[in-house]
Amino acid sequence: MPELRKDPISGRWVVIAVERGKRPSDFKSAAVGKEEKPKSCPFCEGNEGKTPPEILAWRKPDTKPNDIGWEVRVTQNKFPALTMQGEIHRRGEGILDYMTGIGAHEVIIDSPEHSTTLAEMEVNHIDKILWAYKMRISELEKDDRFRYVLVFRNYGTGAGASLAHPHSQLIATPITPRYVKLELRTARDYFHIKERCIFCDLVKQELNSGARIVAENEYFVAYAPFASRFPFEIWILPRRHHSNFQDIPDAERMQLAMMLKEILSRLAKVLNDPPYNYVIHTAPNPAPRPGRPDYWGTIKYDFHWHIEVIPRLTKMAGFEWGSGFYINPTSPEQAAKFLREVSL
Amino acid sequence: MPELRKDPISGRWVVIAVERGKRPSDFKSAAVGKEEKPKSCPFCEGNEGKTPPEILAWRKPDTKPNDIGWEVRVTQNKFPALTMQGEIHRRGEGILDYMTGIGAHEVIIDSPEHSTTLAEMEVNHIDKILWAYKMRISELEKDDRFRYVLVFRNYGTGAGASLAHPHSQLIATPITPRYVKLELRTARDYFHIKERCIFCDLVKQELNSGARIVAENEYFVAYAPFASRFPFEIWILPRRHHSNFQDIPDAERMQLAMMLKEILSRLAKVLNDPPYNYVIHTAPNPAPRPGRPDYWGTIKYDFHWHIEVIPRLTKMAGFEWGSGFYINPTSPEQAAKFLREVSL
Repeated sequence: MPELRKDPISGRWVVIAVERGKRPSDFKSAAVGKEEKPKSCPFCEGNEGKTPPEILAWRKPDTKPNDIGWEVRVTQNKFPALTMQGEIHRRGEGILDYMTGIGAHEVIIDSPEHSTTLAEMEVNHIDKILWAYKMRISELEKDDRFRYVLVFRNYGTGAGASLAHPHSQLIATPITPRYVKLELRTARDYFHIKERCIFCDLVKQELNSGARIVAENEYFVAYAPFASRFPFEIWILPRRHHSNFQDIPDAERMQLAMMLKEILSRLAKVLNDPPYNYVIHTAPNPAPRPGRPDYWGTIKYDFHWHIEVIPRLTKMAGFEWGSGFYINPTSPEQAAKFLREVSL
Repeated sequence: MPELRKDPISGRWVVIAVERGKRPSDFKSAAVGKEEKPKSCPFCEGNEGKTPPEILAWRKPDTKPNDIGWEVRVTQNKFPALTMQGEIHRRGEGILDYMTGIGAHEVIIDSPEHSTTLAEMEVNHIDKILWAYKMRISELEKDDRFRYVLVFRNYGTGAGASLAHPHSQLIATPITPRYVKLELRTARDYFHIKERCIFCDLVKQELNSGARIVAENEYFVAYAPFASRFPFEIWILPRRHHSNFQDIPDAERMQLAMMLKEILSRLAKVLNDPPYNYVIHTAPNPAPRPGRPDYWGTIKYDFHWHIEVIPRLTKMAGFEWGSGFYINPTSPEQAAKFLREVSL
């Protein structure tokens, strides 16, 4: 019999096909594969002039901004969805609400190499990408106009990437994205009852059971969530309680780089280099809110940052978009087993 | 400057690119087109033996169930996501919640013809499909185990359809889908303050403004929602307040068939026969809830059924899945104008 499972964080019910579950070979996702290096790629080394000016870069000694010699490079998105200039204004029109589209939209160019996947990069290099995420979040969260800084990565056209060159993106917004808000509310309510972090409790329960664990190291754990919406969905969480990605100590960040490499390598191996997205869910910016100086409340204690990784294997999205109701053809236990057991 | 807009029903903020918006020709959605009729299609007339037994059909006089002579035919889904046999049981495991996967999963075969699209069908025929929706919802809502009956349609493989033969689907669930629940909450809260239906107010404001209206007839109005998540998203609502799709009077149902044909024809014309999904949002089943005999509360007065139509044009879903934050490259005003002005 299929099972309905409730995600303890979002409260979302999901149908999980526990019996005749889909195996990795049942998903015909097009492998992302390698693109031949085009002459004109704006993210390739030597083409620095084709992007907006550099905001941040991990550079080799004695190299200049907007020139060669970088390892990770951050620029504004050439076609930003939101604009940096201006003030936040809200206005109404009858029952409708508008806000000016103020925000930051940046590109983190993950590497000067056109054809390396994140899974293939050295751990040391991945750590530099994570460093760039951290630096940009830390900088943008100081801007009073922004409530949230969202870092994400689209890998492959099937996941929405418009350029093949490895890159991540960041959007700073004057609102907190919906799913993050939902998580914040659940975490707060749980904390009010238990005086414990719900994510810490979940991690403990997952480690005890082991059935959905994909990988562990000293500071991080990765598992397929109990009520996964999508086949082979994976969450990466720090074992120790931290509300903010950007406050991660250096030693832990290196372990996160290792974990990210391992998870993406396992996904690539089991599912033949599938397109995927990942999104970092960190706490919202600490800026005060009008009339709510204590907006942050217990977030430091109740929220637990994490990364959600979603391989793009199924096409059922439209119905889900219209209802918020998900049918997952692969149980997280099966998914975790495949991912755990594949040899790298 | 881009705009942030808040959907008054879901509370979701969306970035709308109001300036350099994408035009219909910017979307490279593969036209669904016609498939040559395969011999083995289980939904074609003459192949009735290849589906599970008929549950309901609009039949010509003197024809027998599970034989030829039908115009619309409903059967169980051959690979149901949920199962009809059994009782609802809930259990916990630490902080995780399980429920038995009880439910109905049916297929509404829209026509005996393999290659006609819904947009091309006669209004009279579409009315019979709507009749089948109504009959099945009315029947299944009597089952105390189910809280909701969700009717939807996936058109084209890009929208998740696995068979090309025109068909709709229905899922009865022991839970109310998440987005419907969100709408129910907003509608209830608004009613408590205003003693008016928020959808009625919205329809009135949209008709007054006219900027987002796509089509109108005596009983129905179709518009591109103010904070559309997706380019060319359209909602169809009854002008008069009704909480339930299934209680729609016959005269109004015929006008809904006309409206549906018109909207789908306009979408096909403007966007070159794109894949789409539609989902009917009706009130939840009136079955009593444990400890909440008044669960229905004011739903009859505060909720307003409607159909959400989502063409599948963009591939940005994964990021949205991970954050609940949407960037819509075509403003609903532009979309409505294109759809309104195309000649059919």
